[in-house]
Amino acid sequence: MSSMYRYSTLAGKMQPSPIRELFRMIRQPGMISFAGGLPDPSAFPVGPFADCSDVLSRDGRQVLQYGASEGYPPLREFLLELMGDRLGAEIHPEQLLVTSGSQQGLNLVARVLLDPGDVVVIEAPTYPGTIHSLRNAGARFATIPCDADGMQVELLPGIVEATVAATGQRPKLIYTVPDFSNPSGVCMSRDRRKRLVALAGELEIPVFEDDPYGKLRYSGEALPNLCRIADGGPEVIYASSFSKVLAPGVRVAWTVADPGLTRAMVLMRQGEDLCTSTVTQALVAEYCRRGLLDSHMDRILEVYSSKCEAMQRALTRHLPNGAATWTEPEGGFFFWLELARDSSRDLFDRAVAEKVAFVPGDAFYPGRDEQVGEVHTGNRFARLCFTFADDDAIDEGCRRLATALGN
Amino acid sequence: MSSMYRYSTLAGKMQPSPIRELFRMIRQPGMISFAGGLPDPSAFPVGPFADCSDVLSRDGRQVLQYGASEGYPPLREFLLELMGDRLGAEIHPEQLLVTSGSQQGLNLVARVLLDPGDVVVIEAPTYPGTIHSLRNAGARFATIPCDADGMQVELLPGIVEATVAATGQRPKLIYTVPDFSNPSGVCMSRDRRKRLVALAGELEIPVFEDDPYGKLRYSGEALPNLCRIADGGPEVIYASSFSKVLAPGVRVAWTVADPGLTRAMVLMRQGEDLCTSTVTQALVAEYCRRGLLDSHMDRILEVYSSKCEAMQRALTRHLPNGAATWTEPEGGFFFWLELARDSSRDLFDRAVAEKVAFVPGDAFYPGRDEQVGEVHTGNRFARLCFTFADDDAIDEGCRRLATALGN
Repeated sequence: MSSMYRYSTLAGKMQPSPIRELFRMIRQPGMISFAGGLPDPSAFPVGPFADCSDVLSRDGRQVLQYGASEGYPPLREFLLELMGDRLGAEIHPEQLLVTSGSQQGLNLVARVLLDPGDVVVIEAPTYPGTIHSLRNAGARFATIPCDADGMQVELLPGIVEATVAATGQRPKLIYTVPDFSNPSGVCMSRDRRKRLVALAGELEIPVFEDDPYGKLRYSGEALPNLCRIADGGPEVIYASSFSKVLAPGVRVAWTVADPGLTRAMVLMRQGEDLCTSTVTQALVAEYCRRGLLDSHMDRILEVYSSKCEAMQRALTRHLPNGAATWTEPEGGFFFWLELARDSSRDLFDRAVAEKVAFVPGDAFYPGRDEQVGEVHTGNRFARLCFTFADDDAIDEGCRRLATALGN
Repeated sequence: MSSMYRYSTLAGKMQPSPIRELFRMIRQPGMISFAGGLPDPSAFPVGPFADCSDVLSRDGRQVLQYGASEGYPPLREFLLELMGDRLGAEIHPEQLLVTSGSQQGLNLVARVLLDPGDVVVIEAPTYPGTIHSLRNAGARFATIPCDADGMQVELLPGIVEATVAATGQRPKLIYTVPDFSNPSGVCMSRDRRKRLVALAGELEIPVFEDDPYGKLRYSGEALPNLCRIADGGPEVIYASSFSKVLAPGVRVAWTVADPGLTRAMVLMRQGEDLCTSTVTQALVAEYCRRGLLDSHMDRILEVYSSKCEAMQRALTRHLPNGAATWTEPEGGFFFWLELARDSSRDLFDRAVAEKVAFVPGDAFYPGRDEQVGEVHTGNRFARLCFTFADDDAIDEGCRRLATALGN
């Protein structure tokens, strides 16, 4: 019966999610995991969120019905206001689309813009879900390395030129997480932000600004979003989400983009899933309407900044002799360790034997054969998520990691 | 700035959803709409469903977290049992995938199986969302007309042969709604079901059995699902949903398919939206766990069968002189009228002037240039949804329709 299914060319190139594969390996009793990029479930606003189910009684007939592909009107109202504050200017309702996670926003952009073989410029390292989604649309990747100030934007013109030379076409899209990048934790500097938006306009390549972590800043000065710098212009497709600031289980996120592009995304998603669940949109809208998001943000900023400090202390205590280097992040979810000697894959195996887990750096890079131009890989890096484990586990996990490192 | 976006080949071929375009035209005060395929909001189990939000307090830490792409475990347990009953045999957990609406199930199958230009056999008329989703994957369509016994399966070998002759390739997929098809309301006969499953095996072309309405039977004898006839074999990809039997706003549906195909669908959806909202999955699972689905089914069967009879009476009363013919459906959501003289597009304009709306038949057929082989169109047909309007509106709407028909 194997001849029953003839898979598509792109499906034939799909790869298992490297992180999900890891999860299978580390599901063991006693394991301390810094691997998943998960919020702390003990910080979820369980009671207040459940209370919002009043809206399911009050507006049930509307909430249980099919919803608009563009989003549930009360949630859209809240988001238009939120984005107005974030951008310092009103956005047009036709620029806003509610999505089922930011993943869907990126996926829609990928399906709407990319033909198989098209090149996307991504910062390296980058979120594996991004690589997965773009790969499923047939993308190839030009990688720009990051330093302590984020994506090295000054390399962009050369990379675009090299891509045109190699493929005959400009890249179709640039992807970045300017605030507290996953996995590197770095923020793009103000100068680079301005330069990137200007270059996107000059080169006529839109930037996908993925901003799940921007509001999770524990120290340092907030920097303007790319889409604020672009003043809502077509250079920047902005995406943000309730996953990290409220709860990922709601699957509610949004994009702000050019009205024409947003219409195309709506048309594409009508063939994908019609609309985001009105039930979860209504619960989130009610949560926001009650003014609960701000006080919850205060709470998780406290929890996560304390965990961030705990991991910084633990790493400093247990990894003293230069086996790894890192910069304490000013926000987000992750420490990004550069190993002095080890391959992170080898270290991973030894760490799992010590019952501590992280994600080896290679997961955050496309495969060598998917990269156009200079090839980058992450074998000397390790991503440690500090938001999920509790303080004791953070300390003990770092101690085990030091053992695995041979300290 | 128009050169900022270079759309993909497939996005360039997207078409606005014909039904959503209609919705804009008919949003007028006093309009009676038989157009949308919507459940009756007054039949939603608003109170009992809202009560299930207990689960958000009880299991909040799990429910608000990221969920497995395959689905929320308690819901999966319920569905495995439900499908065991429906199929008369156990299904393997690796065959089950929870999706965000059946639309997503079809969309995943389309992305996993179809390359642009591949041919899908669809029954004609068929659900526009199906055409939309398949078109977005680049499909072309071979159409098999339906009669009172559903898809004319006996034409399938000839259509496959003609497709091979025209394109050099077998069709990749066959799509059908065997029970109470949208829009025709017909059921595929038992003999044709058996024949279709046998042919799918012989021709090595899997069948997508879309079953949103199967449990909404108001009269007549239930017929076995295709996937029951196939005994869970790879010939049939089964999809069903909570949208029509509980509420579409939850966006919870599921597929049962070959384990290998299901794995490919999971990989594809990890790039699309990661997982269906655990919040809505948990609410639906709790609703089912409390045994509320069965009693709710009893209630909506009563409501909808009564509305079905009301429309049959109203059509018989107001349209007596052969201007249109139809068969009273035994279940589902729709009457499918064949007009004796009129084009349904012209009738639509006159009907809207009389303040009654339906969907003209052409919406349920692919465009002429998308069809391979014999071309079918629906210009003499009209779909009337009987589930949304109340009894008085049903009668008055049919009276207005008769006026528009010139009775």
